[in-house]
Amino acid sequence: MVVIGELINGMYKDVGKAIVNKETDVIEHLAEDQVKAGAVVLDVNTGPYSKNQKDDMKWLIETIQGVVRVRLALDSTKADVIEEGLKIVKERAIINSTNGDEAKMETIFGLAKKYNTQVIGLAMDKSGVPDSKDKRLELAAAIVAKAMEFGINTEDLFLDPIVLPVNVAQTQGREVLESIREFRLLCDPAPNTMIGLSNVSQGTKFRPLINRTFLTMAVANGLTSAILDPLDKELMDAMITAELILNKAIYCDSFLDAYRKR
Amino acid sequence: MVVIGELINGMYKDVGKAIVNKETDVIEHLAEDQVKAGAVVLDVNTGPYSKNQKDDMKWLIETIQGVVRVRLALDSTKADVIEEGLKIVKERAIINSTNGDEAKMETIFGLAKKYNTQVIGLAMDKSGVPDSKDKRLELAAAIVAKAMEFGINTEDLFLDPIVLPVNVAQTQGREVLESIREFRLLCDPAPNTMIGLSNVSQGTKFRPLINRTFLTMAVANGLTSAILDPLDKELMDAMITAELILNKAIYCDSFLDAYRKR
Repeated sequence: MVVIGELINGMYKDVGKAIVNKETDVIEHLAEDQVKAGAVVLDVNTGPYSKNQKDDMKWLIETIQGVVRVRLALDSTKADVIEEGLKIVKERAIINSTNGDEAKMETIFGLAKKYNTQVIGLAMDKSGVPDSKDKRLELAAAIVAKAMEFGINTEDLFLDPIVLPVNVAQTQGREVLESIREFRLLCDPAPNTMIGLSNVSQGTKFRPLINRTFLTMAVANGLTSAILDPLDKELMDAMITAELILNKAIYCDSFLDAYRKR
Repeated sequence: MVVIGELINGMYKDVGKAIVNKETDVIEHLAEDQVKAGAVVLDVNTGPYSKNQKDDMKWLIETIQGVVRVRLALDSTKADVIEEGLKIVKERAIINSTNGDEAKMETIFGLAKKYNTQVIGLAMDKSGVPDSKDKRLELAAAIVAKAMEFGINTEDLFLDPIVLPVNVAQTQGREVLESIREFRLLCDPAPNTMIGLSNVSQGTKFRPLINRTFLTMAVANGLTSAILDPLDKELMDAMITAELILNKAIYCDSFLDAYRKR
């Protein structure tokens, strides 16, 4: 499982403040803690309070790379902000994200090709998030086709069916889980699948329980990656155990520690 | 989800002792506590220490029915012990179990027809537990075919792919999970699927974590029933949440309480 740490995102109040005030230590700790907890990629998003997203993206990346050697997922709706980051990342990056809109795909896959990155592809478009598995598959297929046009290896795609909060879109849980299963069959080699996990529990009362239950169900359906909070120990335990059950790690009594000490 | 409480089983030391000494209060408490925790069926097994299984089965059923109104799963390898119970159960029973052996199926489905019960069908036979999904499907299909011969409604079958301990049969987790998914497609109306959950964690160090993770994955694959320990609150929380995600209960902030107060 490719665990992408979600915590370096300016939409979180403390992080937003740290970005505005250039509090290096806040970002450094978040980077180190997430990697220690099992994240192999860190999401980087300057957030809504940033006055200069290009500069802030650069500062975040330099700050993170000053303390950990880790892959980064550059998370912005703006291609020029992403490209500013791509120029200075030291490990292979992931672009977060394209969707199924033609112009967006052209731009993002162009960047991906130029900088040899992986790409998160959201199964949505201008008209919003689909309400069925079939529409999600249609959009995912369009993203796969466009990636192939650009000569991008389908293994370098992370297809995201878009998780919605269970309290407002309860019919969509099943659609998303089945989408994860079917996205894997879209092409060979199979694309990665991913979810932005925390969204499933937005506005609910038992967020950690809902998060780890949904993640476990998604792993059962073949999920290969998620953006999540790696500091949620019970969440990581559930994920490690689900992968053990699927025989992705060899059983030993201390399988939780073994995973974390890899 | 049909939750079958596993605790009234003579293989557990305290229960075995209670059966031998006819300690009514031990059995009464186990019956009441399991029902209160969400079990809708109670498994009843006299266990290995019973000197007279027919008498003990009768005593267990009478003791349970003295305090709770609940369906029972009569759990024995001996047809005459099961029949002794079937004569006195007050609610519709489940026979636990038949396997895919011809003679066994003839006996058990004969009883099921005579007493209008449901039946657990284990996807195994004389030669043991299969090591692949396909062999499990073959045995399950044979059980479905035989049930139909007896005029038993396929909805009254609980097909069990046989869960093995993750520490000794790690490849089998995935086979079992896929079997659950495919068993549902064997006939219309779909049969129930069920697992004896606790077996997955036999001999492991983190039993509750492995149990609840496996159960959640099984629910994601369409599981409709399990024999488990309903007094494991975190296990029940995980199951309730997984069913919520699949939209089998309507979301409210207090969905855990709502389930338990049904």
